[in-house]
Amino acid sequence: MKKFLNDPVNFVDEMLEGIYAAHPMVTYVNDDLRCLVTAKPKAGKVGLTTGGGSGHLPTFLGFVGDGMLDGAAVGGVFQSPSAEQMYQVTKAVDQGVGVLYIYGNYSGDIINFDMAAELADLDGIAVKQVVGNDDVASSIVGEEHKRRGVAGIFFIYKAAGAAAAEGLSLDEVARIADKARMKTRTMGVALSSCVVPEIGHATFSIGEDEMEIGMGIHGEPGISRKKLGAADAVVDEMMERIFNETDYKSGDDVAVLINGLGGTPLEELYILFRRVRQLLDARGVNLKHVWIGEFATSMEMAGASISILHLDEELDRLMAAPANTPFFKHVTG
Amino acid sequence: MKKFLNDPVNFVDEMLEGIYAAHPMVTYVNDDLRCLVTAKPKAGKVGLTTGGGSGHLPTFLGFVGDGMLDGAAVGGVFQSPSAEQMYQVTKAVDQGVGVLYIYGNYSGDIINFDMAAELADLDGIAVKQVVGNDDVASSIVGEEHKRRGVAGIFFIYKAAGAAAAEGLSLDEVARIADKARMKTRTMGVALSSCVVPEIGHATFSIGEDEMEIGMGIHGEPGISRKKLGAADAVVDEMMERIFNETDYKSGDDVAVLINGLGGTPLEELYILFRRVRQLLDARGVNLKHVWIGEFATSMEMAGASISILHLDEELDRLMAAPANTPFFKHVTG
Repeated sequence: MKKFLNDPVNFVDEMLEGIYAAHPMVTYVNDDLRCLVTAKPKAGKVGLTTGGGSGHLPTFLGFVGDGMLDGAAVGGVFQSPSAEQMYQVTKAVDQGVGVLYIYGNYSGDIINFDMAAELADLDGIAVKQVVGNDDVASSIVGEEHKRRGVAGIFFIYKAAGAAAAEGLSLDEVARIADKARMKTRTMGVALSSCVVPEIGHATFSIGEDEMEIGMGIHGEPGISRKKLGAADAVVDEMMERIFNETDYKSGDDVAVLINGLGGTPLEELYILFRRVRQLLDARGVNLKHVWIGEFATSMEMAGASISILHLDEELDRLMAAPANTPFFKHVTG
Repeated sequence: MKKFLNDPVNFVDEMLEGIYAAHPMVTYVNDDLRCLVTAKPKAGKVGLTTGGGSGHLPTFLGFVGDGMLDGAAVGGVFQSPSAEQMYQVTKAVDQGVGVLYIYGNYSGDIINFDMAAELADLDGIAVKQVVGNDDVASSIVGEEHKRRGVAGIFFIYKAAGAAAAEGLSLDEVARIADKARMKTRTMGVALSSCVVPEIGHATFSIGEDEMEIGMGIHGEPGISRKKLGAADAVVDEMMERIFNETDYKSGDDVAVLINGLGGTPLEELYILFRRVRQLLDARGVNLKHVWIGEFATSMEMAGASISILHLDEELDRLMAAPANTPFFKHVTG
């Protein structure tokens, strides 16, 4: 295992100590490093909270900051944080106008966020939830509720974060977050495994010339394993699955996220994007926003995902809004 | 080779097509994708040009934008761009007040930038040069002129870019860039090899439990190869070499860059930073600015580097200035 770490048991907490030492814009509550919140709460703003396992930086905690989220409950590597941690974060970010939970569709997270919402309800804090399920590969059309949440959750954060920063109500922010959720599709492909520090060896094995289309960000099985082809052919296959269940028409606007899973060089993400752009151009679909880099990783896994958000005027405006978080900055103009 | 690519021969140009398709803030001149320049030139500003081989994103071209650089000549993977490309970029970015070249200390780049400067001189364009040589591992004290330029060149870009944006003269911008150069030290450690697309196999081999201290970003040999120890011990060894040739005193200010070489998860970079911060705190050295992420990579190489810039008031001010480039955004406040 080629990792920079001390005792693997301390991996997450030492990572968090590094986060707090680097980024004074975030802090923690309840004497628990894993209850991360913004250090600059905004009075009267709807609170946005996320949470989930570690090992996916910048997801989840990396997006706490101006124009994005207010808090994140941080779990062990690929493990759900506790309901108590989510509840503590909820109390800390509530400004009296309610809190929206945005997280991925994993059973542990759902159970714990549900429990946190019940605890918050006893305190009189209004909570709504939007559960990201953008991973096209993880279930068929008609069973979208079974789909995993992956990198496309970024679009929900961005839309909801900008809406909350505009001062919209909890109902409005939740409506927008849910719209962004429904309008987002992601397809991923893995080329190599990740290594969980406390386990110390690859989560799965894959041949030197193989790729797995649709693999999850914890190494969940995908749709098909096959010989790694040319980059353009890989993109064509991924985009075909996205096009198959969306109705982008000529003249429509989209936002695109090309996400590296951890071990893939940035250069290759741009080669993938080049082809995505060609396919969108061929259909007359307008690229209004694009982000390329690492947004939701799986430790050192080589691979990438393509997320597309179908924009309307409202989502377009919210994508364009400024943001300033430790891992994501968006500058207007 | 687990890479997203089409024909390896087209790796760089397809990557560049992706860059231009994603980032309208940059464009190219002379009908040559490899002559990258800002699309928003600022009248009367000193032009800042860099260049070097591909395979190091965001270095070099990723820092062309507001508050940073104006142009970059782009070479093949780990290859110098041509003097002609550097000259074309020079002509394009010159606003009549001169151009500063900032690049790393590699013989091919030096020869070609020297030639480009001569061509520019014939056109009456004033050119100055600052050659980054921050890699402590690549030569002994007293022979700093033999040292390679690595991730610490970021600090030179940032200082010079902010100085030029303030409207300072070529002489002043060059003075500041040279000060940042002299005040920067970097130590790196590699855990795995990179793969050059046209070669298709690892540049070097390294044992499953080994690290190489001081390896260059093209796989140049380092100082020592040994068993990979605990993260804190690795940082201690790297920082000792930096401390040994600097004179940070209690109360001094520094900027820190923790740079991932490509394949190392962000989580681990924060574990490294945690220890760097502890060592600085123990000496009473103030951390004024920190950036953590991928700044100068070696394709998918696992590993990291630590760069430290010893600040004075002027450099502190310039580090704090805003920047907006495709790969680096700095938001003030």
